Amino acid sequence: MKFTIAKLPGDGIGPEVVAQAVKVLEAIGKKYGHEFDFTFGITGAHAIDEVGEPYPESTHQICMDADAVLFGAIGDPKYDNDPKAKVRPEQGLLAMRKKLGLYANIRPINTFPSLIHKSPLRPDLVEGADFVVIRELTGGIYFGEPRGRSENGEKAYDTCVYTKEEVTRITKLGFEYARLRNKRMTVVDKANVLATSRLWRETVQGMVADYPDVEVDYMFVDNAAMQIIQWPKKFDVMLTENMFGDILSDEASVITGSLGLLPSASVGIHTSVFEPIHGSYPQAAGKDIANPIGTVLSAALLLELGLKLPAEAKAVRDAVDASLAADAVTEDIATDKAKAFKTSAVGDWLAEY
Amino acid sequence: MKFTIAKLPGDGIGPEVVAQAVKVLEAIGKKYGHEFDFTFGITGAHAIDEVGEPYPESTHQICMDADAVLFGAIGDPKYDNDPKAKVRPEQGLLAMRKKLGLYANIRPINTFPSLIHKSPLRPDLVEGADFVVIRELTGGIYFGEPRGRSENGEKAYDTCVYTKEEVTRITKLGFEYARLRNKRMTVVDKANVLATSRLWRETVQGMVADYPDVEVDYMFVDNAAMQIIQWPKKFDVMLTENMFGDILSDEASVITGSLGLLPSASVGIHTSVFEPIHGSYPQAAGKDIANPIGTVLSAALLLELGLKLPAEAKAVRDAVDASLAADAVTEDIATDKAKAFKTSAVGDWLAEY
Ligand SMILES: CC(C)[C@H](C(=O)O)[C@@H](O)C(=O)O
Ligand SMILES: CC(C)[C@H](C(=O)O)[C@@H](O)C(=O)O
Repeated sequence: MKFTIAKLPGDGIGPEVVAQAVKVLEAIGKKYGHEFDFTFGITGAHAIDEVGEPYPESTHQICMDADAVLFGAIGDPKYDNDPKAKVRPEQGLLAMRKKLGLYANIRPINTFPSLIHKSPLRPDLVEGADFVVIRELTGGIYFGEPRGRSENGEKAYDTCVYTKEEVTRITKLGFEYARLRNKRMTVVDKANVLATSRLWRETVQGMVADYPDVEVDYMFVDNAAMQIIQWPKKFDVMLTENMFGDILSDEASVITGSLGLLPSASVGIHTSVFEPIHGSYPQAAGKDIANPIGTVLSAALLLELGLKLPAEAKAVRDAVDASLAADAVTEDIATDKAKAFKTSAVGDWLAEY
Repeated sequence: MKFTIAKLPGDGIGPEVVAQAVKVLEAIGKKYGHEFDFTFGITGAHAIDEVGEPYPESTHQICMDADAVLFGAIGDPKYDNDPKAKVRPEQGLLAMRKKLGLYANIRPINTFPSLIHKSPLRPDLVEGADFVVIRELTGGIYFGEPRGRSENGEKAYDTCVYTKEEVTRITKLGFEYARLRNKRMTVVDKANVLATSRLWRETVQGMVADYPDVEVDYMFVDNAAMQIIQWPKKFDVMLTENMFGDILSDEASVITGSLGLLPSASVGIHTSVFEPIHGSYPQAAGKDIANPIGTVLSAALLLELGLKLPAEAKAVRDAVDASLAADAVTEDIATDKAKAFKTSAVGDWLAEY
């Protein structure tokens, strides 16, 4: 089969790690007889420098025309420290989400046996944790109107909005994901305070009868923030709104001790975007030391969810497991630091495998 | 000196634990020559049953007339499972916060050497962590208008609002608290997305020159949710808005392994409220097994912040440390379960000490 994959390396270590995922996808293409056509788009700080916008229309078109998007990371410290910067790289992220209709961010959370000693949690509590945070990504307080300042500047406001349709769409995805896993879904909200949360609960509750095989429970966000640390193994699918998902998915990632290895998928109306969760990590850029596994596992998700090629996805995951077992990894996680691989060497090893 | 302390035991284990704190305060009064006049008010599920409201006007008057309020906990499962309940115990909490103007919730986070093995984190990471979360408590998305549903019910919305005045008031308290500690303050927000967060940053930034001895840094909430787990020892004062504070203060409490022992203060315009953070824990109610230390340490905060009696506060904390050292504690934390103390016996021991 022939597929078009938009390649958006972005800033910092983005280009280096994306290059390794491309190698792996090309190896998969060769082995399974697929043709992957990679189309390149600029994003982030990089794109602001070139055309003044972090997610330019040309890049948007490339994404719209693609079967899936492989994304690196965006963000550059020179914009963080400039309060006068009118355009910021992160706005590119938000624009991309909105324009591609990326309504569901999927973050698998799991531990790796060889990295469990890196977890900040006691190993017995976290080892074997395996759940998925599904975060609504185009609604809520991120995009609700009105937002801004009162005329005299003394008052600021943001609006959190959800429609029943938005909640229904992502809840459906949550139920379907739960069916592929252990058939349990925890809906996280703040229904004791927020009107939007009450709409979420009501909408989910109206759908449970259609998925009798999935067990649903509700949890307040403050409680969820505690239980992720106390009993991470009890979760299966966690479904939540945009802002809570931002906080909880990052919290959940960190307990695994393998933040640099975790992938993500943002499922959209027009296409879907796959990216590592680690960010642009500018200090390491250009040094060929960044860990490419998060991006390679994002490519696996791309094969599985974006192109519906589960066998190919499994082959990529097997390669990653083998590289971890063989200590064919970058210095950040290598057991024997002296024999640590460079970023590009890990990519070669995985592609070869 | 003579002081009036409003006593609001509330639901569940509230009455039992508050009774122990009262014993301790009475012992302090005897030793230091103060007279504490305790005035009783009904709240929570209890108050709904009696007068139909969780924070009735009579209780409000009792609080308004008091030098400080000692509060137990509210919440009852019979309301949690009743979707048709019009009045919920938690609304009493929100009404109390609003009517008493409790704008700052202060949550000291610290570990106890004898309980460090209960922390879900690796001991070396968390041992000695000692910081304070200061949460704005009467603004933001908890109270902002408009909030509710569209006419056809298909859309729900909540509004997050902050005024410069509200931010200034709590930031001042944050700076002053930091001065009493290690002179560092981390302001947590989501300024890359929210207009309200940008007002917070701008307001704080406008005040730093008045507190040149305090070092200020800013952190996005998703990042803070990670760093609390990764490097809890790096924080001193963490200042944040209402919703983020709800999530982060609970997350921070759980890493200590001593959730049942942590106190809180809610500083108000009219008076201040002191309560343990553990909640009503209905399963244990009436069994004389609940751990009273969170409430006793809340009484210490009451002495310190509410009545400006720091020596008396220290005496209470010393008693608690001694009871922990002597294993004169309830079964949840007793080393020798067979010799565990009852709730009331811990209160007697502490008062005696
Ligand atoms: C950069 C920021 C706007 C973004 C978000 O909050 O969504 C980031 O934290 C993320 O989670 O992808
Ligand atoms: C019960 C609820 C409304 C309350 C809050 O969110 O403020 C609670 O979680 C708390 O933190 O005291």
